[in-house]
Amino acid sequence: MVNKVDLNCDMGEGFGVYRFGFDEEAMPYVTSANLACGFHASDPMTMLRAIRLAKKHGVAVGAHPSFPDRVGFGRRLLGASPDEIRADVIYQIGALAALCRSQGVGLTHVKAHGALYNLATRDVEVATAIAEAVKSTDRNLTMICLAGSRMTEAARKAGLRCREEVFADRGYTRQGTLVPRNLPGAIVHDVGAVVSRVLLMVREGRVLSVDGEEVPVSAETICVHADTPGAVEMIRAIRQTLEREGLV
Amino acid sequence: MVNKVDLNCDMGEGFGVYRFGFDEEAMPYVTSANLACGFHASDPMTMLRAIRLAKKHGVAVGAHPSFPDRVGFGRRLLGASPDEIRADVIYQIGALAALCRSQGVGLTHVKAHGALYNLATRDVEVATAIAEAVKSTDRNLTMICLAGSRMTEAARKAGLRCREEVFADRGYTRQGTLVPRNLPGAIVHDVGAVVSRVLLMVREGRVLSVDGEEVPVSAETICVHADTPGAVEMIRAIRQTLEREGLV
Amino acid sequence: MVNKVDLNCDMGEGFGVYRFGFDEEAMPYVTSANLACGFHASDPMTMLRAIRLAKKHGVAVGAHPSFPDRVGFGRRLLGASPDEIRADVIYQIGALAALCRSQGVGLTHVKAHGALYNLATRDVEVATAIAEAVKSTDRNLTMICLAGSRMTEAARKAGLRCREEVFADRGYTRQGTLVPRNLPGAIVHDVGAVVSRVLLMVREGRVLSVDGEEVPVSAETICVHADTPGAVEMIRAIRQTLEREGLV
Amino acid sequence: MVNKVDLNCDMGEGFGVYRFGFDEEAMPYVTSANLACGFHASDPMTMLRAIRLAKKHGVAVGAHPSFPDRVGFGRRLLGASPDEIRADVIYQIGALAALCRSQGVGLTHVKAHGALYNLATRDVEVATAIAEAVKSTDRNLTMICLAGSRMTEAARKAGLRCREEVFADRGYTRQGTLVPRNLPGAIVHDVGAVVSRVLLMVREGRVLSVDGEEVPVSAETICVHADTPGAVEMIRAIRQTLEREGLV
Repeated sequence: MVNKVDLNCDMGEGFGVYRFGFDEEAMPYVTSANLACGFHASDPMTMLRAIRLAKKHGVAVGAHPSFPDRVGFGRRLLGASPDEIRADVIYQIGALAALCRSQGVGLTHVKAHGALYNLATRDVEVATAIAEAVKSTDRNLTMICLAGSRMTEAARKAGLRCREEVFADRGYTRQGTLVPRNLPGAIVHDVGAVVSRVLLMVREGRVLSVDGEEVPVSAETICVHADTPGAVEMIRAIRQTLEREGLV
Repeated sequence: MVNKVDLNCDMGEGFGVYRFGFDEEAMPYVTSANLACGFHASDPMTMLRAIRLAKKHGVAVGAHPSFPDRVGFGRRLLGASPDEIRADVIYQIGALAALCRSQGVGLTHVKAHGALYNLATRDVEVATAIAEAVKSTDRNLTMICLAGSRMTEAARKAGLRCREEVFADRGYTRQGTLVPRNLPGAIVHDVGAVVSRVLLMVREGRVLSVDGEEVPVSAETICVHADTPGAVEMIRAIRQTLEREGLV
Repeated sequence: MVNKVDLNCDMGEGFGVYRFGFDEEAMPYVTSANLACGFHASDPMTMLRAIRLAKKHGVAVGAHPSFPDRVGFGRRLLGASPDEIRADVIYQIGALAALCRSQGVGLTHVKAHGALYNLATRDVEVATAIAEAVKSTDRNLTMICLAGSRMTEAARKAGLRCREEVFADRGYTRQGTLVPRNLPGAIVHDVGAVVSRVLLMVREGRVLSVDGEEVPVSAETICVHADTPGAVEMIRAIRQTLEREGLV
Repeated sequence: MVNKVDLNCDMGEGFGVYRFGFDEEAMPYVTSANLACGFHASDPMTMLRAIRLAKKHGVAVGAHPSFPDRVGFGRRLLGASPDEIRADVIYQIGALAALCRSQGVGLTHVKAHGALYNLATRDVEVATAIAEAVKSTDRNLTMICLAGSRMTEAARKAGLRCREEVFADRGYTRQGTLVPRNLPGAIVHDVGAVVSRVLLMVREGRVLSVDGEEVPVSAETICVHADTPGAVEMIRAIRQTLEREGLV
């Protein structure tokens, strides 16, 4: 028997009149959509549109909570306390869950966004605040976590289902962490190379690091992007390959 | 057998470092607290504090959704469409409901705030959008509506439980509407007079209009205020009288 | 001697990571750019980018103040008082003027945005509040006003320079007002027709109404749009024609 | 001849319906008011009220720019880039300056707020971004800086007038830095002790550290607070003493 892999993608990140990314083009190829909840992007009408699009394609809907920073798109670190983070995350999940309910859609998972995600991979207090927020809102939600990070620990400790995440197009260090974006090898641009890496990660639980070492990774879900036309091409290639191999 | 009456009060209307009103002083005397949801006032931490205070005093918690207008405290009319209003209200109820759940508190009711409330008393499309929002979030929620208004109609048409509201300290016209705030007789300041009016409304379903006519009103819940020390005194007097009379 | 005509365009209406419209493509063809000031769109970094782009093309920079409503892009009517509007407009002009100064660019004009513009064309109190705001910030600023509207009156009464505005691609009624967007004839789509109308308005001060009457208009500045690729084509055609005729 | 000392105080930090602190009570005793500019607190109407109050008492008006974080009152560190900080600070100073101009009041100084202030005391890039923002807006503005910090360096390097600031009621370390708020000795509560410390700082340029050492400080302006009734008493005592000694 083969484990199926999940393809998750951040979506619904427009705001008011603004559109962002290629949700319509990418939605057919993903299996989970992480929808912005109004703190870094989106607003109630944009959330509704994204939920309806996901529903149309049978894609699982999750919450993508963030620090409150619209102008910085949630990409800037904010010195919020764990108590503030917990309350902010509950608020965001609850708001999205209610909009989902109004469309007859269930919420399945939560994945933190941007600077909050990055902080939670290394700060156990923050990771715990997020896990507690998820649990107190709905203990059946799955938490998407960077494979092998503090988030994974916190989610498991809270008794939550956790799905470990790898990145299709990011370089890895020998330690299994992501190569920082400002260093060479941070991004893999070639579609063929990305597809090969994904297959290796999903089938064998390994990835080749930037310095040529094989590193173990737990690839329960693959993070893909939909913010450029090229990114959509890449998602399609990954999806088609995984389907052909019976992995999705 | 005597019908019990509800005493509802807008609360949790601080924001960040700002406090607003006298929630701690007033909470012991009310039976329902309408909590701001972050659109005209409040934020996730302030919502949590308000929920905990209501829980401590056994007060029913409801959502108090608004137009998105923090600087205007939701008191300014906004040309939002019914679709936008529906989505905004669902978002706000969902956010508060999740924070309630995290404290083991159930959400019982919804009352629109400020300019949105006023608009919904006369605009059936807006009233319907709010009622649909409430229903799609949780069909067991009660909607607090201005007695005899479009809101009441819309709530009933949606199949929602509806609680008709009167105002303890506001003057009424012969038509049963509130005297506008800029006209004489809009506010009743004397505590004794307010208490007498409340008793008449609750026990006999009548109120004396500014021009001396007896007007029928349906007083299932009484709106009281907690934003001045004097207002708290008035709530206490109302509560004590209603208790003595076995009406609360 | 021929009066030169101004071509004004709303620009700098992105926000954070969001881009809006085709500023780069359109900037070479306009003579005045109305830049959003952070209330309906834009933020300090976006404002800086827009100022630099205008400077590069020698385009005059003006402020484009709005009601505070980012999620509604300033297109929704807000029940703000004239005092609030005056203060909001001063704030926005001052913020943009300072960013201009930091780039060695002078601010030349002000044009209200969206719902605020529309309100000011018919409400003299609001128009006066805007004119006073402009005057108190810098009495040398020109105010762009709908030709023949309350705004024009208010600007002149305040002693401000006023530039009367016509719309290149909008239908006019026999009364010289714009055909509402939901009615037939509201928008003129054909580039050739638009160019002919512009020439007639600029050279002869006349426009053909939807019902075939010639209506006088004062065309000191022409409002053009840059929010679709087709709109940019239209600006280019207008600009080239006006240049060939020595009108710009 | 005696150097006069400045008494500066953060004011105008309400927002919408919310009041904050005791501006009316404290204004008569201070010489400089640092007014919030809408990013951590305040809004255009609140700014106007604060400007008028300062004008009435002949108090110098300065800008108090912040990170954009209303819910956190600008007290949380935000990972904004120096470019973003520079643009945000220009925006805020410009907005306040225009509102001042509308009241016939000149802007005299700038003092960064909260987490931005703290960051700028130790991060020279951030301090430089603020100094450049001040300079590009108006090179005659004075920058209030923590005595002996990176801010002072950056302000001087930019060629700005700089006023070095000490805190009336804060404990100092042997190194001349403030004792962190979570450690003993961080706050001096006794009014007599505070007044004595202020006199020593102003007249002799020295302060007694928490561990009993005399530390040199440059006290060109004294930061006082107006957010509690007790704080107002303290300002009054400081002011009366300085007046009696001919130091203000």
